Amino acid sequence: MINYPGKKKVYGNGQVYSLASRRGMSLEEDINVSNAYYREKEIAVVHKKPTPIQIVHVDYPSRNKAKITEAYFKQPSTTDYQGVYKGYCLDFEAKETKNKTLFPLSLLHQHQLNHLRQVSRHGALSFLIIRFTSLEKTYLVLATDMITYIDSHSSRSLPITWIDKNAIILSGNLKIPCDYIGGLETMMKGKKL
Amino acid sequence: MINYPGKKKVYGNGQVYSLASRRGMSLEEDINVSNAYYREKEIAVVHKKPTPIQIVHVDYPSRNKAKITEAYFKQPSTTDYQGVYKGYCLDFEAKETKNKTLFPLSLLHQHQLNHLRQVSRHGALSFLIIRFTSLEKTYLVLATDMITYIDSHSSRSLPITWIDKNAIILSGNLKIPCDYIGGLETMMKGKKL
Repeated sequence: MINYPGKKKVYGNGQVYSLASRRGMSLEEDINVSNAYYREKEIAVVHKKPTPIQIVHVDYPSRNKAKITEAYFKQPSTTDYQGVYKGYCLDFEAKETKNKTLFPLSLLHQHQLNHLRQVSRHGALSFLIIRFTSLEKTYLVLATDMITYIDSHSSRSLPITWIDKNAIILSGNLKIPCDYIGGLETMMKGKKL
Repeated sequence: MINYPGKKKVYGNGQVYSLASRRGMSLEEDINVSNAYYREKEIAVVHKKPTPIQIVHVDYPSRNKAKITEAYFKQPSTTDYQGVYKGYCLDFEAKETKNKTLFPLSLLHQHQLNHLRQVSRHGALSFLIIRFTSLEKTYLVLATDMITYIDSHSSRSLPITWIDKNAIILSGNLKIPCDYIGGLETMMKGKKL
């Protein structure tokens, strides 16, 4: 199910599934569709967290109806996705970049990075899903691997050469456009999580 | 640390900690303060999820500033709290009631109940924190226990007699006003989770 760098994206019955055919579909949409499938098939229960919003003013135009008339976006203090899979606590963030050679760490907020560190220490299976839109490739990077790299390099980015070596490419199909559970299963076979 | 029904709320050095002295503090505030302490002391990483909101209109009065001018509250599809503790995936909801004899199940949305069922099946440690404000007692009820009860009774509520028998009372102090991790630790010693 999972294809390593260099291999064609072949999925299931051999059908070639190209990101090109899904142009316009964001990584977030792909993950939402995949999560719905995982929940329906009882594979995993993962939800995207609501966007944190600071509410300043609420009107009540009628009984039982509340209309928020002034609110602002807040910076998220955690990652966007959380859930449970075979008893593992999943905690991850998803990011897209047009860059072809590296993933800029500036796309992660400092407190998101701190959060990934913290939940990893407590035994969560935490990771980052990175889509390189120009390369049409989606990777799963374990938070522990990323943190080890960050702590031993002064670089403010993850080079694609490092990602190709340390992450795995996620495949997908129409039902599971971003099959990160398949990716995790492959990782679990190969290394201790 | 944990006191069973009938016992006085005695905590740590014997200081009697009464809910009465915290009148005006909601269960949500108590849990937020407790979560901050758990995170700071590296005991557990638990966050309250943001309230889900349907955004209809956003103004951009200036560059880099977005002002939401029309939005509505959405029904939550999951529980309010999620996190990780010693590798366990925590997933819970917190409710207050003024009722003295029962907990009305109508306080839980049907999809929240479904969510608790689902995450329990997948190995999360899921539960409900119920505060009976008139009784000045806060209980932790395991989702699995509650679901077993609901499935075998036609009642639309959990009687306090059942809760007293099947749940444990949570204690608290100024630093951890709602010590549900202490409650879980006690439960873990006594029964298989």
